[in-house]
Amino acid sequence: MKIQIIGNGNVATHLYNALTSSFQVSNVSSRTLDGFDISSDISIICVKDDAIIEVANKIFEFYGREYNGIIAHTSGSKSISLLDIFEDRAGVLYPLQTFSKDISLDYKSIPFFVEGKSEKTRKSLLELGMRISGKVTEMDSRHRIKMHIASVFICNFTNHLLTLGDEILKDCGINFDVMVPLLRETMRKAENTGSPFSTQTGPAIRKDKKVIDSHINILEEDFPGNFSEIYKLLSKSIIETYR
Amino acid sequence: MKIQIIGNGNVATHLYNALTSSFQVSNVSSRTLDGFDISSDISIICVKDDAIIEVANKIFEFYGREYNGIIAHTSGSKSISLLDIFEDRAGVLYPLQTFSKDISLDYKSIPFFVEGKSEKTRKSLLELGMRISGKVTEMDSRHRIKMHIASVFICNFTNHLLTLGDEILKDCGINFDVMVPLLRETMRKAENTGSPFSTQTGPAIRKDKKVIDSHINILEEDFPGNFSEIYKLLSKSIIETYR
Repeated sequence: MKIQIIGNGNVATHLYNALTSSFQVSNVSSRTLDGFDISSDISIICVKDDAIIEVANKIFEFYGREYNGIIAHTSGSKSISLLDIFEDRAGVLYPLQTFSKDISLDYKSIPFFVEGKSEKTRKSLLELGMRISGKVTEMDSRHRIKMHIASVFICNFTNHLLTLGDEILKDCGINFDVMVPLLRETMRKAENTGSPFSTQTGPAIRKDKKVIDSHINILEEDFPGNFSEIYKLLSKSIIETYR
Repeated sequence: MKIQIIGNGNVATHLYNALTSSFQVSNVSSRTLDGFDISSDISIICVKDDAIIEVANKIFEFYGREYNGIIAHTSGSKSISLLDIFEDRAGVLYPLQTFSKDISLDYKSIPFFVEGKSEKTRKSLLELGMRISGKVTEMDSRHRIKMHIASVFICNFTNHLLTLGDEILKDCGINFDVMVPLLRETMRKAENTGSPFSTQTGPAIRKDKKVIDSHINILEEDFPGNFSEIYKLLSKSIIETYR
């Protein structure tokens, strides 16, 4: 199977590395389409979300008559419908992972989510995903977007809470490192049980109004910005979740 | 040095285990004070925040004239002033960790924060902490409370975001496990850099209004409760943090 990856960002680089041992893989410039091979079985558009439609249109314009392979994008937040011009050959191959260019990842642990406009497209993309990680699931666009929302809560928003916590630690003259054992223990519990719902701790789940109010007072006095508002909303959400 | 631990919850159990190799440690019932030893050098009150003052008063009432040792509590969120009746001998020994009764911890990795009303009290509690973990810092009550607030953001609130994310995953028919590699990578980056500020990713830091709005729409349609409000507030906070 011949595969070409269009783009050269983080996801493109990692996909290239993950596929190169099992397939004949080539790289194509997303700007010029230099190197585009019409005999490829699968073309994977690995570019920023907002550039997908432009690259897709360019491929259709340049090679629409000659290229009969599959065209897939790798976005978690974009519908398969961006590739509607390719009809049955449109697909999605979404790797659920944050990629940094310089860090090598264990590709086997990365879950892939696949969608295809036809049985043939789906099958080919499932096969591709199986070769990389073995963890491949079919999922339609709306659920993929929901899963992306889940990853925003689980990764992006949690990271921001670490940032806000780190701000407070700076005020105490303490490094973020000090919190790492506690953070690891929290994560370990959530991972091991597979249910963060069951491992919640802290003043909000104890409905400890005195501590909550004293925390809000200190945040309002010493930390301008969104600190106290976030503290209030997340405490409210915890209390309501365990009512 | 003779130490007695008053209480039998998670923190009490773990402190007992951590101290028993270096000191002569005994356990005292927080309800009856059965086993209270007036010749102890340090008495550590390990009970729920709201019970500290009651236990302290009981000790003072029963043994106020005879006991001349140090009295410390272990709370992150309560001031040393709860123990004012013990004057110079009042202290705090706060271990920054979530304790589960059945899980053995690496005590060496747990940071302790110490406060004492006198030099002698501070010194004794610092020595105690040094024996357990070697990571001991002096910190006054207000900063200790702030640090506790930081730990609410870093541990309790992040765990709740995992819970909310897990709710969304359930709607996709996906287990929490699927997010674990992504979560680990997020945590690994924050830990390795020591600066979660520098490792933020996601639609909000990219100021990707289209994706943010589509996520909010889906949350409003399919997830009642606080989901969309939390999404909006945390995205706003990220955008403002990186302005």
